[in-house]
Order: sequence, then structure tokens, then C-alpha cells
Amino acid sequence: MSLGFEVLARDGAARVGRLTTAHGVVETPVFMPVGTAATVKAMTPEGLAATGARILLGNTYHLMLRPGAERVAALGGLHRFMNWPHAILTDSGGFQVMSLSALRTISEDGVAFRSHLDGSKHLLTPERSVDVQRLLGADITMAFDECTPFPAERAAVEASMELSMRWAERSRRTFAERPGHGIFGIVQGGVHEDLRVRSAKQLTEIGFDGYAIGGLAIGEGQATTFAMTEATVPFLPEDRPRYLMGVGKPSDLVGAVKRGIDMFDCVLPTRSGRTAQAFTRQGTLNLRNACHAEDGAPLDPDCRCPACTGFSRAYLHHLVKAGEILAAMLLTTHNLTYYADLMAAMREAIMAGRLAQFEAPQ
Amino acid sequence: MSLGFEVLARDGAARVGRLTTAHGVVETPVFMPVGTAATVKAMTPEGLAATGARILLGNTYHLMLRPGAERVAALGGLHRFMNWPHAILTDSGGFQVMSLSALRTISEDGVAFRSHLDGSKHLLTPERSVDVQRLLGADITMAFDECTPFPAERAAVEASMELSMRWAERSRRTFAERPGHGIFGIVQGGVHEDLRVRSAKQLTEIGFDGYAIGGLAIGEGQATTFAMTEATVPFLPEDRPRYLMGVGKPSDLVGAVKRGIDMFDCVLPTRSGRTAQAFTRQGTLNLRNACHAEDGAPLDPDCRCPACTGFSRAYLHHLVKAGEILAAMLLTTHNLTYYADLMAAMREAIMAGRLAQFEAPQ
Repeated sequence: MSLGFEVLARDGAARVGRLTTAHGVVETPVFMPVGTAATVKAMTPEGLAATGARILLGNTYHLMLRPGAERVAALGGLHRFMNWPHAILTDSGGFQVMSLSALRTISEDGVAFRSHLDGSKHLLTPERSVDVQRLLGADITMAFDECTPFPAERAAVEASMELSMRWAERSRRTFAERPGHGIFGIVQGGVHEDLRVRSAKQLTEIGFDGYAIGGLAIGEGQATTFAMTEATVPFLPEDRPRYLMGVGKPSDLVGAVKRGIDMFDCVLPTRSGRTAQAFTRQGTLNLRNACHAEDGAPLDPDCRCPACTGFSRAYLHHLVKAGEILAAMLLTTHNLTYYADLMAAMREAIMAGRLAQFEAPQ
Repeated sequence: MSLGFEVLARDGAARVGRLTTAHGVVETPVFMPVGTAATVKAMTPEGLAATGARILLGNTYHLMLRPGAERVAALGGLHRFMNWPHAILTDSGGFQVMSLSALRTISEDGVAFRSHLDGSKHLLTPERSVDVQRLLGADITMAFDECTPFPAERAAVEASMELSMRWAERSRRTFAERPGHGIFGIVQGGVHEDLRVRSAKQLTEIGFDGYAIGGLAIGEGQATTFAMTEATVPFLPEDRPRYLMGVGKPSDLVGAVKRGIDMFDCVLPTRSGRTAQAFTRQGTLNLRNACHAEDGAPLDPDCRCPACTGFSRAYLHHLVKAGEILAAMLLTTHNLTYYADLMAAMREAIMAGRLAQFEAPQ
């Protein structure tokens, strides 16, 4: 059996689930911290696990360029390389190849591009993307897709989605079944409900271990993200996990869980941790602000993380002003703990049948 | 009683001692990691304590300028501010005010200067330095001194040393006795043995809780550092700790312990940790070098630290190349563990009466 997924409880469209991978069990709904270059920035693996994380996301595009998929494989795979014993989902490289690489050319075959690091030439196809993810040792592989830009003409969106569906079929065919490993397809279709539905149906027909909704949270706005999610979810299999890619803010997560999403990833908590922004139960704070300079209170009095139990806002403000690495370490730890606890609170609310009343601070 | 110090064993000029402070016991010989801006860079307090550190050094010059001594005091003192429950020694500001500040003017009273951060005007006197260190809550206060530049004319060195001795007397008089707290005098005198001896005698006459040797390791070379140490130590009280300031490389520490030094501080292990240099039992390594790119072996197979038990040289090389914060975190952790274990090994060798055979890797 590939990847286990059990739905344990439902509350409206929302579910609590248990995802079983080759590297342990993941409770859903879950937020996956982003570990772009084989590290969740400013975190040790132990520190990351202590936030509650049991799955992280690795970026195929970055890792294939540096240190290289074959090198990671020779060193025992990504889990061993980065000393992360829990689950790893890798993206397909489709998103970053469009946003980061130079001189890219899309064809039916795939995307030819030059590395943003050294200008070297590469070709990323569905077959190569899935193979890179196998070399990395991902528990969850993502099908190679084109992230359709926003805004775009409907005809371009449709053509892009259809290309992604053909690539999805090639990705599925390339994927080597292994116990505890699975591959997810990615729904595209921009902001067009009918294209989203058609994409969902085509993917379901191919048959995947999970289904992602891609190409959202790229500028269309929260209402549209939610509308597309609502339009898509009913056409995805009930017994498989659903993953809304690149999302998001706390309120995005709450709204999407209510609409039936089980998995998320986003750089927001980690990137914010390096730019002095903290998510708290009282809303977001910018620790650079002088108002924190003499404040002996913790960041969030209800938070269990080491930044909140050990230090004051005044100290965190001082670290930010002094440009100290510890500022990024503590604020990233806090933000990821906040996200993990937000997801845990939603799982609890679903189990208790009271998710409708659940709200995230703005 | 102010600061406890017991000599537990001797081997030649070297000693094993136990320093008892208001924030716990410190075994000597000891290396003190440098926590300039109320943080040992790239380390959490828990991570620092896990290296074995039980005392760190804080910089009076930096802390008085940002966040300010009165602010730290209002927030409960430096221990609470930075969440470090163990001992803290603060320097006097004398060294940094000469190396970092702008438009400084030395008079009998003290040093008038402008902050390197914002140009604000300040006056640092022996009285203010000791008061700042009291506000910070230092377990060990350092007397305010002038770090004599090297090279310098003998007459200038002598005048500078005599000024430092008058400042030492004023520092001692200002220091408020509190249980578990003490003040150290600082021997000056450049590279002139007779001036060093005169300085040591004058300080001993004033009477301090410990004695530092300052104004060395600033370009005079290891042989001269050792010669000055040998010339000075016999004139310092046997029953008080001796601290060689700003030292140093592993071989400097071994040579100085053999000459009777009990305490050290240096930015080398922490700064090196942020510039890809690692100290190991096989010598120093630069993790940026391509030779490490495919090396699955740990940094130092005999090291107990998380960087060595969890990761390969290839991974550390990758982190360095990618500019990841985790590179600084892991290499700093390793270097401080290496230094702590080097000191522990020397304490063991002294107890066993075999320090003469002890050597550090080059």
C-alpha cells in the first residue's frame, strides 16, 4: 500500500485525518513548514520537531540545482542529508522554474531553463521531476505542472491546465510505487470554476494518492481562493488528502480548512520570522517597532514556544535592532509553533464539532 | 563573601579550580564564549549551556549603547534579559571604546566618545563602567582600563599602564560588594616585563577578586603573549583566578593554561562559526572548500555536538554555499563544544598530572 489516509472525524466540509507515510504519521489538517534548500531557515531539525511539525516541504527546483539530486541520493537521501526523520513532501519544481529561473522555454516535453545560481542549462520534464523527487526520497511526490500566471486570458489558462493534465498523466506513469510513498496530482484552471472542475475530474480519472489545488494565492485575493476551493473540493475523492498549495495567512488556513482542505504550505511563518513579524493570538506584531523596546511581557502569553517562555518583547526587539541571528531563530520558532498550534486547535474543534465558531486573529 | 575560588589540583604552573558565583559554579580552566549584544551569536541559551558553558562574557560598551544599561536593569538585569541562568563576566568597555567608537578623547577622568551606532556622546569613566556593570548584574566586573595599543613607545606604554592602575583603584573603590559577585583588576604594561610586574604588584596591593592580563593577543605574537604571561603570573596571588583576555586559538589556550591561566575569552570560535571555519581534533577545516561537497563523514568523529552527531561535512558545505543561517548555528555550536571539551580535557590532564604531554591540534 502506498500512502495511508484515514478520515477520523468530520465537521461540515472539514475533516480530521491521519496520513501514514514511510516516515511516520501526520495528523491533518496540517501546515507544512518550507525547507527550501534542505533546511527550514534558522531552524534545527530538533527545534522544528519541537514545534510539532511532522512533515516539511522540500523544493525540487532548488535541490536539483544545489546540491543536486544525485548527490543527495548518494549521501543517503534528503531525510538523512538534513537529519529529518519525519515525512517530506517535495514540490515538482514547476512553480519555481517559472518564478526564479532565467531564459525558460516551455514545450510539450517540459521546461528548458538556465539556473538562477550559475546559468547552467537544465531540462525539467514530468519524468525528470518525478525522478528527482525519487532521488531525494520524498514521501510525497508532486506531479509536474505549470503554475498558470495570474491574471491570464481564459484561453491561456485552459491551454495551460490541459498541458498540466497531460504532464500529470506522465508524472503518474513515471512514479515508482513504494510502501509509504505516494504522488499527488495538482488541480489547475486559474479562477475559472469550470476549468477547475474539469481538471479535478481528469486527475481523479488518472488516480492519485492525494490531490492538490495549485495556482492560487498568487494575487487573486482570499475570496477568490476560497471560491475556487469550494468549487473544486466536491470533485475530489473523499478518501484522499487535499492540499492547498502556497497558503497562507492564519485566516486563509481557517477558511480553507472549513472548506475541506487537509494540507498547506507557505513561507509566511518562516520568512516573517526573519523580518521581525510575529503571529500571535492577539494578531501580528512587528518586533522592530519601538513600542516593544521596554516591554517585559512575552510575545504571546499563551504560547508554549521557547521564544515566549524564555524572553520578553523588549529582548526580541533588541535582537531585531542589533541584527542578531537569534532574532530569526526565536521568531521563526515562535511563528512555526503558532502555526502548528493553530492547526492542532482546528483539529480539536473539528473533533468537537465546533469548527464553525473557530476564527483566526486578523 | 564575594566570589569563591578554590584550587583543587595543580600540575606545574597549571591549576584546576572552582569559581563560585551568584549564578553557579564554574570549573577552571574555562573558556568564556563572547555574548557581545546580550546573545552569543547564532546560539540559544539552551544550546550554549549544552556545549558545557557555565559562564559567558558580555560587552559593556555594546550593551550601554544598545539597549542601554538602565533599560537592561529595568527589565531585571542581563541574566533575565537574555535568559542565561549561569554566570556572566562583563568587560569594562575599555577595549571596545578604543577600537569601535568615534572621536574619543582620553583624559585622567575617562574616555569621552561618540557611539559607533548613532553618533551620540558618552563618557566612560571607571565609576560609570563599574556602575554599568552593576546595572547589567554581572557576576564578575572588570576594572576600567586603557588597552594600550601595540606597538607603542615604552614611555607611552608606561604612562598608559599607570593611568590604568589609577583607574583600577577608582574601579575597586566604586565596586559594591555583593555575595557571589567580584571585581577583577587588569594587568597592563605592553610587552615590557618590568612594567607587567609593576602593574601586577600595584593591582595586588589594591586587592581584587581575580586578576586579568590585558593588552595581549593584539598582534605581538604567541611567543610574546606566553613570555608576558610567564613574567606576570608569579606576581599574582595564588588563591585568586587569573584571566588572559581575548585569547585565543586552541594552541594559545593550551600554552597559557600550562603557564597558570584559569580563564579565557575570545570571539574566535563564534566568529569562525559564521565564516565556515571549524575547529576539530584533526585541525581546522574550511567548510566552504569543494573537497567537502560529497563527504558523508562528520566534521569531527570524536565530537559529541549536534552538528557532528547529526550531519555530514557534505551537508555543512551545502549550508555554507547556500548562505543558510543553519550553517552558522551548527558550526558555532560545534566550535563552542570543541572549546568546552578542550578545556575539560585540560582539567582532566591537570588532575592526572599529565598536562605537560597535552597538545592542541594546530
